[in-house]
Parts: sequence; C-alpha cells; structure tokens
Amino acid sequence: MAQKTDAQVTIGGRTYTLSGYESEEYLQEIAAYLNSKIEQMQADRDFQKIPLEMRNVLLQLNISDDCHKARREAEKQAALAQERMQEIADLKHEIVALQMKMEAMQN
Amino acid sequence: MAQKTDAQVTIGGRTYTLSGYESEEYLQEIAAYLNSKIEQMQADRDFQKIPLEMRNVLLQLNISDDCHKARREAEKQAALAQERMQEIADLKHEIVALQMKMEAMQN
Repeated sequence: MAQKTDAQVTIGGRTYTLSGYESEEYLQEIAAYLNSKIEQMQADRDFQKIPLEMRNVLLQLNISDDCHKARREAEKQAALAQERMQEIADLKHEIVALQMKMEAMQN
Repeated sequence: MAQKTDAQVTIGGRTYTLSGYESEEYLQEIAAYLNSKIEQMQADRDFQKIPLEMRNVLLQLNISDDCHKARREAEKQAALAQERMQEIADLKHEIVALQMKMEAMQN
C-alpha cells in the first residue's frame, strides 16, 4: 500500500493539513487550481455581495463544470484513439494483402 | 450568441436558480454530480463533526481532484490519439511504397 502523505496547503488564505495517498506535489497542484478558481470568482465584485453559502455552491458548481468538460474531452479523445486503432488495423490488413499479391507476382 | 437558460437545481437539499449558456440538461447533470459528491462525503459520519467551512473546502478539493484526474486522462488519450495518427501516416507511406513497387514489377 502506498504511504500516506501529509501536506500543508493554503486555500483562500487559510492553511490546512491534507492527508492522502497522492504526492505532495499533486496535492499542491490541486490547491493551486482551487485557489485560482476562488480568485477568479472573487475578482467579480458582485460575487462579494452573495451570501457565503451561495458562494460556496457557485464555486462547487464552477469546478464541477470544469470537471465535466474535462471528462467529455477525455471521452472525445478516447473515441478518436479507438477510431484510429481501427484504421491502423485496416491499413495493416491492406499491407498484408499487398504483400501477398506481390509474392504471388514474384512466383 | 447562444440564448441564456434559467434552470432550477436542487443542491444539498436547497433550490437555486442557475442562469447560463449551457442547456438545462447539462446544468442538471452538473447538479446531480455535485449532489452525489455531497452524499458521498455525508455518508462518512466523521465528516459531520468537521466545521462547515472545512467541509466546504474538502468538498471543493474532492471535486478538484476529480477534475485533475479527468484532465490527465484527456491528455493521456490525446497523446495516444496523436501517436496513432503518426502510425497511420507511416502505414500509408508503406502502402504507397508497396504500390509503387508493384507497379514497377508489372511494367
């Protein structure tokens, strides 16, 4: 089993200790991403007027949106990779057929 | 420009009106994902003992983690699709070379 990592991360100006099986580098990457989302939302002056609970929900929805878009992109790329694998198989068959034809011509 | 959509979504038992350029179906999908994450965390009895602010940060980190994993998967699949595109180009060259060789044999 992988070793547990403790990492101190600062989120929205407060420091938290995270404990998990991911590397410290990964945990810092996640924290940096979350901070960038918080900063983006705080840059909107209207956002400051919204009650804290609603701000949290909006932030969570915003990250969930990023997450869904990344998942759709992953699915799109996986479908493309799959399609190309099929094309590779077809081209390999074509090469074998050509090689057999050539061999027949040589005999 | 796309038309703005207003959608009523229920998150953590409270109803919010979301306004955005995504379809209502997409907004409901995002809300359902967020609710599933909230339910997952609430199923852990220790989680209830954590102060609200920390619970919000943990939820945000948890979704950010999903987001990063999806992005990494998208990058992995894109690299695979790219690699296969190169292989397709190589196989096509090989086919052209074989066809030229065959033509030369026929003449």
